[in-house]
Amino acid sequence: MAKRDLTPKSESMSKWYTQVIQQAKLADYSPVKGCMVIRPNGYGLWENIQKNYQPMLDKMKVRNAYFPIFIPMSFLEKEADHVEGFAPELAVVTHAGGEELVEKLVVRPTSETIMYHMYSKWIQSHRDLPIKINQWNNVVRWEKRTSFFLRTTEFLWQEAHSAHATQEEALDTMYEALETYRSIAEDYLAIPVIKGRKSESEKFAGADVTITIEALMPDGKALQSGTSHHLGQNFSKIHAFNISFQDENDSTQYVWQNSWGLSTRILGALIMTHGDDEGLVLPPRVAPTQVLVMNASKDAQAIEVVKTIVDTLKKSGVRVEMNIDDTTSLGWKLNDAELEGIPVSLIVGARELAENTVTAVVRYTHEKQSLEISNLEKSIPELLETIQTNLFRAAKERQDALTFEANTFNEFKQIMSANRGFIKAFWCEDEVCEAKIKEETKATTRCLPFTSAHGAVEEEQGKCVHCGKSANHRWLFAQAY
Amino acid sequence: MAKRDLTPKSESMSKWYTQVIQQAKLADYSPVKGCMVIRPNGYGLWENIQKNYQPMLDKMKVRNAYFPIFIPMSFLEKEADHVEGFAPELAVVTHAGGEELVEKLVVRPTSETIMYHMYSKWIQSHRDLPIKINQWNNVVRWEKRTSFFLRTTEFLWQEAHSAHATQEEALDTMYEALETYRSIAEDYLAIPVIKGRKSESEKFAGADVTITIEALMPDGKALQSGTSHHLGQNFSKIHAFNISFQDENDSTQYVWQNSWGLSTRILGALIMTHGDDEGLVLPPRVAPTQVLVMNASKDAQAIEVVKTIVDTLKKSGVRVEMNIDDTTSLGWKLNDAELEGIPVSLIVGARELAENTVTAVVRYTHEKQSLEISNLEKSIPELLETIQTNLFRAAKERQDALTFEANTFNEFKQIMSANRGFIKAFWCEDEVCEAKIKEETKATTRCLPFTSAHGAVEEEQGKCVHCGKSANHRWLFAQAY
Repeated sequence: MAKRDLTPKSESMSKWYTQVIQQAKLADYSPVKGCMVIRPNGYGLWENIQKNYQPMLDKMKVRNAYFPIFIPMSFLEKEADHVEGFAPELAVVTHAGGEELVEKLVVRPTSETIMYHMYSKWIQSHRDLPIKINQWNNVVRWEKRTSFFLRTTEFLWQEAHSAHATQEEALDTMYEALETYRSIAEDYLAIPVIKGRKSESEKFAGADVTITIEALMPDGKALQSGTSHHLGQNFSKIHAFNISFQDENDSTQYVWQNSWGLSTRILGALIMTHGDDEGLVLPPRVAPTQVLVMNASKDAQAIEVVKTIVDTLKKSGVRVEMNIDDTTSLGWKLNDAELEGIPVSLIVGARELAENTVTAVVRYTHEKQSLEISNLEKSIPELLETIQTNLFRAAKERQDALTFEANTFNEFKQIMSANRGFIKAFWCEDEVCEAKIKEETKATTRCLPFTSAHGAVEEEQGKCVHCGKSANHRWLFAQAY
Repeated sequence: MAKRDLTPKSESMSKWYTQVIQQAKLADYSPVKGCMVIRPNGYGLWENIQKNYQPMLDKMKVRNAYFPIFIPMSFLEKEADHVEGFAPELAVVTHAGGEELVEKLVVRPTSETIMYHMYSKWIQSHRDLPIKINQWNNVVRWEKRTSFFLRTTEFLWQEAHSAHATQEEALDTMYEALETYRSIAEDYLAIPVIKGRKSESEKFAGADVTITIEALMPDGKALQSGTSHHLGQNFSKIHAFNISFQDENDSTQYVWQNSWGLSTRILGALIMTHGDDEGLVLPPRVAPTQVLVMNASKDAQAIEVVKTIVDTLKKSGVRVEMNIDDTTSLGWKLNDAELEGIPVSLIVGARELAENTVTAVVRYTHEKQSLEISNLEKSIPELLETIQTNLFRAAKERQDALTFEANTFNEFKQIMSANRGFIKAFWCEDEVCEAKIKEETKATTRCLPFTSAHGAVEEEQGKCVHCGKSANHRWLFAQAY
């Protein structure tokens, strides 16, 4: 696999993106339009997100379960906004077991309706609350234009759904969930994000409030990377669901609900954020292989040392592999490791053997350094953490450099056509204005940024960047994926 | 939740089975016919199977990936036996995104065809082999009559698919996979199984050889609990797949393929094998909660000790929970723990506090014993292992007691009507005879039992139990779930 076939990221990010995904074997096109195959290298990244996210769900006392992939069409229709939001994207099973079905079944685009049907059955008393259930599953939303990870007809995600006795508790949980997403994005994927609240037109179909983490890609376009919704009593009070409970005074109350989801879409953000002209760059905390050890000389001693290093690092909990294939050159091995974004390559050659060292090549800087073999169980984990920190810092600097304030609409348009990026601007919160801004600049409101973990926002007096009417907040705008 | 609502297993296993699943909150009926909801208590069992099985896949160098849930109808039709086997059970998507699809899509009943389409693209050279890829996913097979876990329209499983340069290597992998299933069944689920080869009529649609692990339920009916298939070159040589490679001499060869799968069906075996009149009995190695600690007296000191014990056991790696709910009695707490099958309950009351002990109640024996608090980090893991061993031993004794030899068809029929169970009997290996035996006794060939890990079978001269023609092997017969 030659990196020379790869369009440089600096030349065309979109070409680079589809090429690097295929060449690094993250994913491939499938024979079903809009569906992709996630290959082991890509699935390994998703598994590492799962491994790191699951303890956060555990801490929130969310339990995993599994609900049917099929939802009766009538269920989706129970909540008006919900069905309106999803109807155009549904895949419908009309025949099964050789017969036409009496009621058509929808392949789940999300599981609110089928889960809440069950919640209604399971929740009777305040003692049954809260309920917090998560699914790791596949969902289907028919898309006209698709792109690896970013927008595919079928995708993998987690969807968590909670029901609470009080709105206060539900809102707390909504913010707690968003914080877990910030942590996954920033602390593990090294992707800086902005937390905030969605506008009315951008919120989830069926929610009272949607809050989001928004990332900025190197091309200046934003990627919504995880959302947490407060559904209020929109589902519970609908007669068809009727999710009610007897409170401590034996009076009937309706539950307050949330849902939140994080999908394989975020792998698109990971790839775009860190990759470079040579290929992928993976942050150590989620890289399926953190260190690749290879031999530069073919003698038995070099191979022996490679194996010893692999054993040592495995024992220290490093995800390490070796490449001692004697049919490819060291240059090819390094090229492959570079393309696949493996954070550190370790080379054992004649000089290294003489010195009891290895040469470490750091993927994202291309820098080489010499490391004592006797100290690798200490130096490698430290090096990996340094790389993790630096990748985040570099991404944050790029995000900051592409974040602007616009006080006039001319300024807004100029920034958006020159650099794209995040623009902070006053908006009157009228949907008509929002639509016009989008029409003229392709930029949408991404969120009203939070200044605290519990959703505080900066109050400021200003004038809407588009219509000039008075406005209370600067919203975050960007063109979006 | 009161165990008094539970039909005793000894009275009616089928009633007990559906009741215990719902009362212990393992699963529930869904609004979609034939599909069930796997609730957290049930899903936790599946997760523990996954956690224990994944390292076995890792050891076999199988990598996880994800392929689309939709398969073009034409793909299934490429392998004649395969489509014939699955056609009656397919769910078909005919409309999506508001339009009728040009090519109908099948919701995967299994992924051979879509995976092998990709394998054909990915495999070019002997250097690309072997490929071993696993999916943890959901599949759909439309069923007329369904039962929790045992037979549901949608179920969860792992399906692994390998392609090899030589048949020998593929066959080795087939046996290796079956051994992992034996280990999951026996070493983790404490379910004794018989390994063996399926007859021609019972093998997988598209396979050359299917090998199986067969368990025997307490009602004397067998449950096929995991199968490993050698597909030979049935798929690779089909023009539409054409999975070929250049060997070391640059000549074109076709790959040899396997697939193997283990599903949530095995949870049905788990429930039936160990449960008793009071509810579930879970083997410690897969129990989501291994130990439940509860207070018998309401004073602060008892609660403090409960919490200390929980902390201590957590640190020793025990999956431990506590129940210090002060609105239910000790009797209720014990009843609930019994119903849910938690292997060990620990009680802290006044007497225990005075003696620095806890009372341990072992679920499957109902026996109580006093344990020193200071020694719990040692005594509890030992007790759990003893329970695991004894549950397997007890199940094996029940299986042995229900395993018979029949030398005449009268004897065969008598056993099958009196006890059911496994019957070892000579069979001529003619499908006509097999069908007649089934017609007259409802018993099918379960397998030709292996005497070695690599599929050796006992050669013996005898006469077919049905037709009297000469036969070379005693096959294992049973009525099957």
